[in-house]
Amino acid sequence: MKIPKPTVKRLGLYYRCLARYKEDGVNFISSQDIADRLNIKPSQVRKDLSYFGEFGKRGLGYNVSKLLSEIAHIIGVNKEWNVAIIGAGNLGSALANYPGLLKHKFRVVAVFDNDREKVGKKLSGITVSHISELSKLVKELKIEIAVLAVPESAAQYVAELVEEAGIKGIVNFSPIKLRTSIPVEDVDITLSFETIAYTIIKSTNSEVEIEDK
Amino acid sequence: MKIPKPTVKRLGLYYRCLARYKEDGVNFISSQDIADRLNIKPSQVRKDLSYFGEFGKRGLGYNVSKLLSEIAHIIGVNKEWNVAIIGAGNLGSALANYPGLLKHKFRVVAVFDNDREKVGKKLSGITVSHISELSKLVKELKIEIAVLAVPESAAQYVAELVEEAGIKGIVNFSPIKLRTSIPVEDVDITLSFETIAYTIIKSTNSEVEIEDK
Repeated sequence: MKIPKPTVKRLGLYYRCLARYKEDGVNFISSQDIADRLNIKPSQVRKDLSYFGEFGKRGLGYNVSKLLSEIAHIIGVNKEWNVAIIGAGNLGSALANYPGLLKHKFRVVAVFDNDREKVGKKLSGITVSHISELSKLVKELKIEIAVLAVPESAAQYVAELVEEAGIKGIVNFSPIKLRTSIPVEDVDITLSFETIAYTIIKSTNSEVEIEDK
Repeated sequence: MKIPKPTVKRLGLYYRCLARYKEDGVNFISSQDIADRLNIKPSQVRKDLSYFGEFGKRGLGYNVSKLLSEIAHIIGVNKEWNVAIIGAGNLGSALANYPGLLKHKFRVVAVFDNDREKVGKKLSGITVSHISELSKLVKELKIEIAVLAVPESAAQYVAELVEEAGIKGIVNFSPIKLRTSIPVEDVDITLSFETIAYTIIKSTNSEVEIEDK
């Protein structure tokens, strides 16, 4: 079974939407309800969820609790993930302080830098370690995910260190495509700007429509 | 013509890849060349570019200069965009200092906050303005794109201010779906973590494969 990446991304949105319904005491919802909350098409919701088997019942809708726990299992939020941030600059600091991460069971347990000025300082309660300690701390703290918040010029080298240290996946904020044998999820900030620029241009041009899928 | 959002995102990658080829003095390239650099399938490159007409010639490949200027036109990097950052915390500071933005013709011309402690301070050469000046400065500085780097609780309210001020599009770093009538590009950091968590889980499970499209 092949799952398109945009579907994987939307599962996180469905998860949060369902969690709110559950908090509100709602037991059953329709794909229309989910779609309305997220500004997407009900057919998209049904298609996305169809990759994971038959959760819905015709006429009755989806069982909120059941669907929530299935998605939690699928997207891996039923376990806690230990995360290291590499790079203690503004971006690394923003991420270390980002409350949404822990809320979604991503616990920042270490921050690394190669700048001796930054090593030893505290970020959101975590002491910045020198990058030379990466391998040791990955084992000690059971770190599975590394966030690359380093300059573009250092990114490929750091990715290799991270892979050698035994980390299982990278969230990459640098604007280059990393060559690694572990999974990488790119968060390319510039690309988001290019996408919005393109959307603005096209919103004044009725010939082209961007399909939000 | 409908263009899938993942295609729009990849155009930015093609643009950069082609810019490097041009710098290297390469005149013609194949979809295979582009695909190899970006770790994607040549068929994906050809499909993406097919939305925008016939740029390639069979056997000869794509004309680098021509394709580059066509994509620049399509993704809007042939003009400069004035950008305002809303929120002068760690994330806003990281974005104000992010060199990749200006390199891609996104010029940060203003930073706003509602915290009187932050107003008047300098971030990357730009004095932080109070949010009450948004509307005035949007007109004076011809700001078209706003970046939301504010707490989740403030995001919807700020989005409404931004829309009223006449801004054309939002790059949204808050983890909520904004309700606006202007285009929004979400950069949901938590979703990227959920995607990598899911990818790690599935990389140890051969039943499911994530399609990188």
